[in-house]
Amino acid sequence: MKLVIAVVQDKDSNRLSNQLIQKGFGATKLASTGGFLKSGNTTFLIGVEEERVEEVLQVIKDTCKSREKTVTPMSNMGGSSGETYVPYPVTVQVGGATVFVVDVQQFAHF
Amino acid sequence: MKLVIAVVQDKDSNRLSNQLIQKGFGATKLASTGGFLKSGNTTFLIGVEEERVEEVLQVIKDTCKSREKTVTPMSNMGGSSGETYVPYPVTVQVGGATVFVVDVQQFAHF
Amino acid sequence: MKLVIAVVQDKDSNRLSNQLIQKGFGATKLASTGGFLKSGNTTFLIGVEEERVEEVLQVIKDTCKSREKTVTPMSNMGGSSGETYVPYPVTVQVGGATVFVVDVQQFAHF
Ligand code: NI
Ligand code: NI
Ligand code: NI
Repeated sequence: MKLVIAVVQDKDSNRLSNQLIQKGFGATKLASTGGFLKSGNTTFLIGVEEERVEEVLQVIKDTCKSREKTVTPMSNMGGSSGETYVPYPVTVQVGGATVFVVDVQQFAHF
Repeated sequence: MKLVIAVVQDKDSNRLSNQLIQKGFGATKLASTGGFLKSGNTTFLIGVEEERVEEVLQVIKDTCKSREKTVTPMSNMGGSSGETYVPYPVTVQVGGATVFVVDVQQFAHF
Repeated sequence: MKLVIAVVQDKDSNRLSNQLIQKGFGATKLASTGGFLKSGNTTFLIGVEEERVEEVLQVIKDTCKSREKTVTPMSNMGGSSGETYVPYPVTVQVGGATVFVVDVQQFAHF
């Protein structure tokens, strides 16, 4: 048995939860902040048999990996009236996951 | 030294805290959600000497184990006026604990 | 790779965060309560290479260790009017950290 401790961004947290449930993995979620990732994040504790660790890592990678996202801010680019709004796309980095796999010496379910 | 990571239901959390304190175990509590257990739960981190791990597991089992509880809902069984309320007992599952025991390579208290 | 799990008092939490960031350590913070320490505390998860574990422990010790603090309560020592306030210093214990170092079998960053 292994314990996978994964810190992911809040915005990816629900998708990760759903994917884990769908694949039959048990996980518990803890609200966390700062550190590995910039702002609000979620720490997942996922108990998993050794032979399925890679599968869990793949799910985390697929749902949370750091990626570029193109956003088009709609804010006024100038300040004076009569000026046109020029919405130009900006690339931002979103997501990301930091994952630790720890050995479980004993596991119990009561 | 071992670290016992236990996810229990919120409603069993206070009793577990009290039992651990009474038996001289140090524990810290983290609010957690979902996953191993249905709804709001609490994750305990309990630092313990190897020879007392079984004792901690027993305390968790005694206070948190999954059990049936008979509740008698008092809600109206019908909808129209004049109908009688028939309070019949319903059996629900409460409690439950998921426990991981992890080896601690180094322990410090400052 | 090691995972350092440190429970510290809330009041030392920001200084610890800053010191860790300054020295290039990644950490995530979880709000926690009770147990090892009296009241509100913070649980840090710090991923660190084996050869820097002692450095992390030193940072935790430097910023969080249990220490005496002299406070001078300004509350009225008597109750009846005309009595003088005698502000005398009181020594209280603040801080403290409980730290577990756990082996990380696999580490991933996506
Ligand atoms: Ni195993
Ligand atoms: Ni040991
Ligand atoms: Ni290592």
